[in-house]
Order: sequence, then structure tokens, then C-alpha cells
Amino acid sequence: MDELTGRHLLGSSTLGPSEKTFLAQNPATEELLVPAFFEADADIVNQAVQLANRDFRAFARTPTGQRAVLLEAIAAELLERKEGLVDRAHLETALPLPRLESELTRTVNQLRMFAQMLNRGESLELRINPALPDRNPLPRPDLRMTQVPLGPVAVFGASNFPLAFSVAGGDTASALAAGCPVVVKGHPAHPGTSELAGLAIQAAIISCGLPEGIFSLIQGSANEVGASLVKHPLIKAVAFTGSLAAGRSLYDLASSRPKPIPCYAEMGSVNPVFFLPEVLETTWGQLACSYADAVALGVGQFCTNPGISLVLKSAGTEQFIDRAGSCLKEKPAAAMVHAGIKQNYLQRLARQVDCSGVVTVATSPADNSRCYVSPTLLRTNAETFMQNPFLAEEVFGPSSLVVECSTFAEMQLVAERLPGQLTATVHASQNELGMAQQLFDVLGFKAGRLIMNGFPTGVEVCEAMVHGGPYPATTESRSTSVGTAAIKRFLRPVCYQNVPRNILPTELHDGGN
Amino acid sequence: MDELTGRHLLGSSTLGPSEKTFLAQNPATEELLVPAFFEADADIVNQAVQLANRDFRAFARTPTGQRAVLLEAIAAELLERKEGLVDRAHLETALPLPRLESELTRTVNQLRMFAQMLNRGESLELRINPALPDRNPLPRPDLRMTQVPLGPVAVFGASNFPLAFSVAGGDTASALAAGCPVVVKGHPAHPGTSELAGLAIQAAIISCGLPEGIFSLIQGSANEVGASLVKHPLIKAVAFTGSLAAGRSLYDLASSRPKPIPCYAEMGSVNPVFFLPEVLETTWGQLACSYADAVALGVGQFCTNPGISLVLKSAGTEQFIDRAGSCLKEKPAAAMVHAGIKQNYLQRLARQVDCSGVVTVATSPADNSRCYVSPTLLRTNAETFMQNPFLAEEVFGPSSLVVECSTFAEMQLVAERLPGQLTATVHASQNELGMAQQLFDVLGFKAGRLIMNGFPTGVEVCEAMVHGGPYPATTESRSTSVGTAAIKRFLRPVCYQNVPRNILPTELHDGGN
Repeated sequence: MDELTGRHLLGSSTLGPSEKTFLAQNPATEELLVPAFFEADADIVNQAVQLANRDFRAFARTPTGQRAVLLEAIAAELLERKEGLVDRAHLETALPLPRLESELTRTVNQLRMFAQMLNRGESLELRINPALPDRNPLPRPDLRMTQVPLGPVAVFGASNFPLAFSVAGGDTASALAAGCPVVVKGHPAHPGTSELAGLAIQAAIISCGLPEGIFSLIQGSANEVGASLVKHPLIKAVAFTGSLAAGRSLYDLASSRPKPIPCYAEMGSVNPVFFLPEVLETTWGQLACSYADAVALGVGQFCTNPGISLVLKSAGTEQFIDRAGSCLKEKPAAAMVHAGIKQNYLQRLARQVDCSGVVTVATSPADNSRCYVSPTLLRTNAETFMQNPFLAEEVFGPSSLVVECSTFAEMQLVAERLPGQLTATVHASQNELGMAQQLFDVLGFKAGRLIMNGFPTGVEVCEAMVHGGPYPATTESRSTSVGTAAIKRFLRPVCYQNVPRNILPTELHDGGN
Repeated sequence: MDELTGRHLLGSSTLGPSEKTFLAQNPATEELLVPAFFEADADIVNQAVQLANRDFRAFARTPTGQRAVLLEAIAAELLERKEGLVDRAHLETALPLPRLESELTRTVNQLRMFAQMLNRGESLELRINPALPDRNPLPRPDLRMTQVPLGPVAVFGASNFPLAFSVAGGDTASALAAGCPVVVKGHPAHPGTSELAGLAIQAAIISCGLPEGIFSLIQGSANEVGASLVKHPLIKAVAFTGSLAAGRSLYDLASSRPKPIPCYAEMGSVNPVFFLPEVLETTWGQLACSYADAVALGVGQFCTNPGISLVLKSAGTEQFIDRAGSCLKEKPAAAMVHAGIKQNYLQRLARQVDCSGVVTVATSPADNSRCYVSPTLLRTNAETFMQNPFLAEEVFGPSSLVVECSTFAEMQLVAERLPGQLTATVHASQNELGMAQQLFDVLGFKAGRLIMNGFPTGVEVCEAMVHGGPYPATTESRSTSVGTAAIKRFLRPVCYQNVPRNILPTELHDGGN
């Protein structure tokens, strides 16, 4: 197993020590974890980006099949380090081992999915218009469109998925698949997990004989490190998953550069779940417990956590709320992934609890020591909800707010007023499909994914997935950060006009004349 | 023929008068043109955007076939107004009648191309992952991706193409094709042409029975009107063609909004043309005159005007430069489309002329009265070019700068240092294909379109076209503003999860289970 060094990974080398260091902490025990990790500075950022830029074009020119081999090799290296990765991630995040094991499987499968897409040759969206020499009044030249990678990409590891949305996660996988070198700024809450995943990528690059500069991992706990990465003139795109405040700040840096670059920040949402009355009346018990499960899953640390639900005033509704509350009460308090997230959760939850018209339905046995928090269910009515826009802001953690509407029209109005969402869900009986459709008609303009009779927390990694949505869910609603379409974020089109076949990129040889 | 009123087009109505007005001017004669056009203000902007937003969803839900009928109807209405449009555009821009006639044909064909694409059902990029109920450890839900329009789009008419890149141009055509209502801010240099084109669109919308709010035309000469349009919270995207300063300022407004929106600004470039020595030696005469033609075409008012060319020091080169100069001298001075563009051209040209190491090769007979300018050819060496980065900035108008390189390595270095471009061109003989490939290897990371043995000025409207490129050519290198792919700018993906077939969007019915 790899020994942790606390050093940055710079291409095939490591870099350290430096004067300043930081330690990870076990959020379940508050125990500090060795080794110390070296704090990056602007000079180290510059070294990593220069290396990435040096090797960019060589990597961009690799055949897609060669990049597929790299992604498969990273998957294999991760699997070889499975035990060490999962154990260290467990120490650093307090997430349960089975969850981390399945997250590693997901991470590995995600890399393989991009490899398969590359092997199928689907990423380049080729378009060919052959020459029309006899067209009047002017002949048409031969025109062929392919895609080229943007350049070095800055990836920010997310704290809530230390494997699947971190160093070797979807952003890195899709950027490498596109042919972009990646400089990861590791999340300071799990630097050891980051180093181990980074070593897996480093080993894969070496074994594939690819240029070392296509991957570096920079560690740091200060915001300045991330800012200097986003502002570096040779960085050509940014990928981030995290809070609205952090995402927006990176977006602002990216778009105010002398040469602006795209910043794909996925910043979460409240993921409304609409329960229509008949389905609630017939299956309230089961739905209530499934809802409570979804709220508490992973200590609520999902971008797709159902932060609000909407119900209609009825007898079934009261039973549903009661049962959801009693199911939630049975969930033990659990540790969030780091102290900052816990503090933010408690502050935002308190603001909701203190809002006049908001009632606490249930909270599981309090254990607020260390990073522990208790799942909580709140309720309010639609009027209060609409009068207090902050109630529609994300509270990242295991709480949810039931919003009771007097009429279906009021429910539609609430839907209408919602800000941009990653997901929106409707539970409906067969007889309620018409109402469901009316809701989807509104929600389709609000969210990236619409779910029927399910919960939003599972994000399938596949071709048709959209993990994105209108602001403030993301800074770029036309993109997804999960699924094969995520590669599009890092490619741009190039058109070849009348370029002879023997100097055209190979993928453009076929078709046309 | 429609009578010009000087009023804004607000859905199916017109709006005016207002206190402030402005007049168009004939750039060839300095004659002021009637009628007076009313200056919009923030209130009028708000009315148009509210109307667009009111009708957005109804329009978004129209079947693509119905939008195809609309685009065909706009094309037909434009053709019916052909004479009036071309005559007024000639008065307002001094562009020759034959050019304007062919520009109208291009505009009409562009609308029809989007209609055909919609009829082929290609715009939605559907992706379907059918359910896998027996998958382990968890079943996969049914997932289907389609695209939805972003919402009301602000389109800025460009001055250099009063038809093809203005009110009924590619931005409007692609936004309407996507299902987005359009609010056009007409360019103040051709308000009459704008009104006539707007009336054609208005008539088409009425004849198709579509909601009136999907198109409005706002006239104004003040920057504030455009700014209030871009800042309006209900505007969801911006499309612009014009100068770097104006484009960047709109981009900054769009990205600093409380809810940022995409701003697709196409801001031009110097479109380098590389001449390799053997092709120059054998065909210098013909190439020199074709080059001069491309420089002077349309009084140089093309985003793809060849603002610089690169040659290697040789006997052939001197003959080539001499001949290009003498061809250019024969071009008469001609009027630019408005006084501001002329002023800008003269200022930027003077800055180049005054640069130590830059020599004027030729300038056609001076006529600097009214909006007239003279085509001009300058030359310098690679060293001077690289030491003065402003020499790589666009001079919008009929001038070009020949950059002489001592060696092919120096030519490659110049290529390497170029900022982002819409196009890059290489002229090479059969024996020089290897060198051409080496140049394209660099230029592919700099430009949206690579051209072999041609000139960049013709922009074919087709599937494979890329009219875009890295900043400062555009603010969004992943997009094109010409060709069918331009529609992607105004769509975002939405995924339906386990939604029953009878309430799924029709385009998602097929495939899967």
C-alpha cells in the first residue's frame, strides 16, 4: 500500500515540504490524522499548470483509444488501492465503509464508462459536408467538424463524495477523456484520500507511457490556492462541486479574467418532491419512510437531497407527516464529513426553525458533539414558504421541510416560484398523471432531471443522465457533471475546410468525397 | 411595401412615439434618412421582455415541425419584402445592391436550413437508457434525455451584415428554432432595415397563429438600452456580433448578474493567412490578387477579413507583396457602413502605420470624405510583430498586414503567439503539406476553422460550419454562431426518470422499453 507523504503530486514527481502544513481530522472522533499535508502556494500552482500546459498538445493528439486505455488503467490502479482508499476515506469523512466501497465501485465504473464511450468514437460529434463543386452561384468547399480539447482544466474535489466527485471522480475522468490535462485542487477535508487517488492516477499515466504533466494534485486548505489556480492564464476551464458561495466565487473569478474561461460549478439545490393526494392516501406509510430514508441518507450530504417536499392539505397528509417524522426520529445522529459543513448545516437549519410559521415535526436524538448532527423534519404552509425566499435555499444536511399547500393551484404556484434545481420529483397515482404532467410542465423549466414516483438521491452514471440545472443549481445549465455528456464541457468544435485527407485528423477521413 | 414608422415592434403591436429619436444616415452621402426612430428606454425593454416571457412556455411546447413552418414563413415574408429591404439597406449601409441581394438570399436560406433541421428532428440530441430492472446491486431506472429552450433571448443586430447577422439573421433564426422568444436590439446604423425585417417576422408569427410575444424589436442608439436588456432578469441568453469592446462589456454584464446567463459574443479576429514559399513562388500573382480581393471585399467589413498574412523571406515573397499592393491600389475607396466604424478603422490603422518597423506598401486613392476609406496594405517583420502585441489586434476594415518571417521556425513561433481566432488559413503546394500540417497542429488550438488554399471570408451556412473560436474571437469557444450547431447555444438538456410514456414529451416515446 502507498505510504502517505503529505506532498503534492506534480506530474510523475512529488513536491514538498513547505513551511505551512495542515492536518485532516476524523469528524467522528475529532482526532487529528497524520501525516501533515503541505500547503500549496501560487508558485506550486504555477508549476503544476506549466507542466499541464507543456504536455497539453501531446495529450490532445493521442488517439481516443489511447485515452480509453488510460482511464481503464486508472480504474485498475484504484481497485488495487481499494482497501487503503476506503479505510483512509472512512477516517477522514466518517462515511460508512460499505458506502465508501460502493462509491469506489461507482468511481471505477465511471472511468470505464468514459473509456467505453471513447472506444465507440462517440465523443467527437463529427459532422461532414462534402464539397459541392458544381453548386450555383458558388461551389461549396469540403467542410468537416470535429472537436478539440480546451486545454488544462482545474478540478476541485468535493467533500461529500471523497472518491466519486473528488480527485479521480467524474470531472477528472471526463476532462482526461476529452484530452485535457487536469490539475486537481484536493479538498482539505480528505487530503489522504486525495493523495492515494492521485497516486493511482500517477501510476496509471506512467504505466501507459503518457506525458506526466497531464495530472497534478495540489493540496491546500486556503481559498487563495484555488483562486490562483482559476486565475492562472493557462487554465482553460474549471469544474467544481460544492456550495453556492464557493461556486459563485470561482465563477466570478473565471469570468472576470482578462481571457474568461468556462466555470462548471454544480452548487446543489433543494430538489423538491411533490406528493399528490391520492398516492399519499393509498401509500402514505411506505412513502413517508422512503422520504425519511432519502433525507437521512449519507447524513443528507447529497446535492440531490430532498430538501423540501410539497403536499396538499388532507387527512392522508397528516398521517404521512407523522410517519415521516417517526421514521426520521429512529435515524441515529451521525457525523458529517467535516466541521465546516456541520456548522453551516446548523446555522441554516436554525434560520429555518426560527422562521415564524415553521414548525419542527421531529428531530432524532440530539448528539451535537464532534461533527454529529441529527436528522430533522420541519413543516410550514405554502404562504409562509413563498413569503420567505430563504426557505427555498439549500440546507446541506439531513433536514427537510414539508410545505403544505391548500390547493393544487397553490402547489403549482409554489412550483412556479422555485429557483433552479438539479432535480424535481412527482409522486402520483395512475389517476393523477394529468396533475403530474401539469407539474412537470412547470418543473421542466426549473430542473435538470424530472423523476416520477422515486427519490432524487440516486444519480445514475449513464448516457442520458443530466446532473445539472438552471442557476443557482449550477453556473452552466447547458452542461451535466455526471454521465457521458459531461465530456462536452471540455471540448470545442473545429471545422476543417478543404484540407486534404492526408493531413486531416484521422477521425475525419471517412464520409464525404 | 411596408411604410416605415420608426416605432418599436412589440409582439403584434408597435410602440411609440417617445421624446427622444434618432435618424439613420446614408454613409455614402452623409444624408440623414427619414423617418425618425424612437429611442427605447428601460420601460420599453421591460415590456418586450415581459411579453416574451409570458409566451415563452407556449412557444417552447410547440412541436419542432410548427417552428419549422414559422421559419419558412419568415423566409417567405422576407422574400416578399426583398426590394424594400435591399433598397433601404443600401441607403443605410452603402453596401452594393448585388451584395445585399445575395445577403438576403443567404438570410432566407439560413432560415430554411434551420427549418429543415427541425423537420429532420436533429436538434434535440435524444439519449435513451432503458430501465434495467434486474441489474445488480440496484436496478437502473428508465432515463431519457431531451433538450428544452433556455427562455427569452436578447439578440443584438450587427452593423456589417444588415440582413444575415441582424434582425432576421442567424441568431434570431437559431433562437426561434430552439423555441426561445427573441427580443432584438436593432443596430442603430440601419433601423429602417431592422424595422422592415422585423415586420416580416411579425407578419409570419401572425400568419402562423403563434403567440405574439415570441418576437419584439427594440430600436435605440444608446448603450443603456442594450445594457438594460442584458440585465433584465427574465432574459436567459445573449447573442451578439460586433467589436471586442462591446462584446466584452455585454459578457461582463451577463456574467455579473445575480443569476448569470450565457453571452455568446462573436468579436472578430485577424484571421491569419500563412503562405508557404513554394506555393508563393509558383502562383504568387494569382494569390496576391485573391488576397487583395479578400482584404477589400465588402470594404473589409467581415469578421473573417484576413487582417494579417505570413510569408517567408524570399524572392517570391517580394513579387507577391508588390502585386498584392498593386491589386489593392486599384480598389476604389468605398464607404463603410457607418461613421463610428470608419473612425475606429482610421484610428486603429494609424496606430499600426505609426508603429516603428511597419511600412505602408500601398493604399488606394485617398477619399476620406463621408464614410469612405481606402484599402491599405502594410508590411513588417516577425520580430516587430511579436514585440508589438497590438499588431495582432483586429483593425476592422480593408487593411492587412504582411508579416515576413526569416525562417519556417519563426513562422511557427508567430502562429504559437497568436491570440484566439475565428479562422486560420494555410496556402501550400503538394510538397508543402508536411509544413501545412505542422502549422495546423498549432492553429487547431487557436482557431474555430482551418482553411487550406482558400480565403476565410466566405462562411458557408451548413452543418459542419464553425464560426467561433477561443477568446478574444468569441466569449464562448464551444459555440458557433453560423450553421445548424448554432441552435445548441439556446438549449439545455433535461432528463426524464421513470416518467410514464403517456406524459413523456413525444420525442422521447420511442426507443427503450
